Amino acid sequence: MSFKPISDIGEFGLIRHIEKLVSPTLDHAPGIVQGIGDDCAVLETSPSTLQVSTTDLLVEHVHFDLLTTPLHHLGSKAVSVNISDICAMNARPLYALVSIALPEKASVELVETLYRGMSETAGLYETAIVGGDTSASKGGIVISVTVVGEVGKEKLTLRKGAAPGDLVCVSGSLGGAAAGLRVLMRERDIMLEHLRHGETFDGDVMNTLAEYSEAIKRQILPSARTDIVAFLEKKNVVPTAMIDISDGLAADLLHLCARSGTGARIEEGRIPVLPQARHIADEFQEDAVNYALGGGEDYQLLFTLDNARFGDIAEHPDISVIGKIVPEEEGVRMADIYGMTVDLEATGGFDHFRGRE
Amino acid sequence: MSFKPISDIGEFGLIRHIEKLVSPTLDHAPGIVQGIGDDCAVLETSPSTLQVSTTDLLVEHVHFDLLTTPLHHLGSKAVSVNISDICAMNARPLYALVSIALPEKASVELVETLYRGMSETAGLYETAIVGGDTSASKGGIVISVTVVGEVGKEKLTLRKGAAPGDLVCVSGSLGGAAAGLRVLMRERDIMLEHLRHGETFDGDVMNTLAEYSEAIKRQILPSARTDIVAFLEKKNVVPTAMIDISDGLAADLLHLCARSGTGARIEEGRIPVLPQARHIADEFQEDAVNYALGGGEDYQLLFTLDNARFGDIAEHPDISVIGKIVPEEEGVRMADIYGMTVDLEATGGFDHFRGRE
Repeated sequence: MSFKPISDIGEFGLIRHIEKLVSPTLDHAPGIVQGIGDDCAVLETSPSTLQVSTTDLLVEHVHFDLLTTPLHHLGSKAVSVNISDICAMNARPLYALVSIALPEKASVELVETLYRGMSETAGLYETAIVGGDTSASKGGIVISVTVVGEVGKEKLTLRKGAAPGDLVCVSGSLGGAAAGLRVLMRERDIMLEHLRHGETFDGDVMNTLAEYSEAIKRQILPSARTDIVAFLEKKNVVPTAMIDISDGLAADLLHLCARSGTGARIEEGRIPVLPQARHIADEFQEDAVNYALGGGEDYQLLFTLDNARFGDIAEHPDISVIGKIVPEEEGVRMADIYGMTVDLEATGGFDHFRGRE
Repeated sequence: MSFKPISDIGEFGLIRHIEKLVSPTLDHAPGIVQGIGDDCAVLETSPSTLQVSTTDLLVEHVHFDLLTTPLHHLGSKAVSVNISDICAMNARPLYALVSIALPEKASVELVETLYRGMSETAGLYETAIVGGDTSASKGGIVISVTVVGEVGKEKLTLRKGAAPGDLVCVSGSLGGAAAGLRVLMRERDIMLEHLRHGETFDGDVMNTLAEYSEAIKRQILPSARTDIVAFLEKKNVVPTAMIDISDGLAADLLHLCARSGTGARIEEGRIPVLPQARHIADEFQEDAVNYALGGGEDYQLLFTLDNARFGDIAEHPDISVIGKIVPEEEGVRMADIYGMTVDLEATGGFDHFRGRE
């Protein structure tokens, strides 16, 4: 008997496979609105309210490296990335469960710093940490966070729902997280080189890298855009579709279009790139737009909007319209600044099991 | 600066510490009934219904060993142990989220077998698997399962609530899981010995160990007692306090009494020990009652009941009354079969960070 390595089907192939394996259990959830395949699962828990829930694993040496990630920030990020999934449903977070596996060498102080980061960040989003689990680990640290939230039935926003003619909008600026990671990886290599030669380094990454601090902050201390969800609520605007940008603008726009059965046409010149990401890209002789398209982890919201509602969001200083939804057969494409058309399906996003696709 | 190892405070000390660190976030959960400290967190989600939620991490080489645990059973157990926590609140499960971290060498077939086990078991408990996360792992396999359930307000049963005079009841029989583990660990050592000498073994643990099959099943394929919760519902009996036996009868009775502010007096002769656990204990020249008291992982329900309700549960063939609740100052004790009194606080349960206490 021969076994197929997971890299043969990739992360998204694996998820589709798992979706099929667990689908028979959905018969037991009469109120299910959405299972695997969106940012959150959605269930009807009362006549007017839907419950949304999401979970994320953060694995040491895969998602983070303690050499470049302060523990306090790690705790904060673990919470924020889940709250971001809640935001992507146009929902508000209610409570979180947090589990942690700790290697034998972990100290009480490590746990304190980590949980302080989680607790402070959960507080910012008015989310209670109500339970969890602790375990030993024979490998590195593993953190599992689950967040449950709620949304009014008429406000729920899925990845599907976009229609040709809708505007493609994005919150904040992109590319910062990837640029920050680029700098941190270089710094890590320098630190390891110092360590190899028995030299010391002060280890305070944030101070020695002050000129890159905004990009690094985007990487190690991202924010979930609960403020955008609150703004949409205030304006009584319900996006037609929404996703948070965790895999990169290209991959997440592809996810949204695939679920909606549409194409999209965006313009490179309209993509809001973090200015510091451009400086960093210049330094590495790379293109900052690629950080935005393929870098991921920006945790901004990508949503589509009925064209007629543009007036309601136009005043917001932190929402950019970057293109529009087109019929599926026109593909998912970007007009670059020279007017050339780039097929975004050829760039793709990040895949844990295959590296860059 | 010196760091305190977690083994200094132990698993329960760590949990109390974490409880303190996250407690400021509870201000954001106005409907919270119970945070960390019971089998589930409990929140008010509607005027008549409470939501309960629980999460568990299963870590390779800490909680399971693929040499002795068939993957299908591992998936099943990951689901059952969480459903058992839901049962311990006298609640019924609604839905589950499942995350998994997989080492590079993991195959698609491994994932299939694991998720089939989870899916089939979730189906048995009428629980939908609605979402999750996948990740690479640089160590072994890590599985995180979260289950959300519900219970009518008047049915909720916590660890606290037992009062002197209440009966101490336990479902099913105990000691099987520990006895099964004892056999599996011996078998594992033999297998490793074979492997070291380049010999083959057929690897089908269940077939070669037929005479121990019931105990092994209790270890690798435990059931959650949703049937007991349904029976209590049918009889309109609400226990005064309840916990599931995951750490061992002694430790879990201590947890229940600590939260209730009571003592307890149980009788060794009334503890329902799995007959096969007695045979295995004889073989190892050990005492099967110690498997029941200190072994853990039996996932039976331990609950207390107003004495006046005894008639309602007396007919059930699988519920044993093993003693009664006494005032706190009388301690948590067991009368052994010779009439001697054993202080259960001296035996304790299993602690992941310190080994046996």
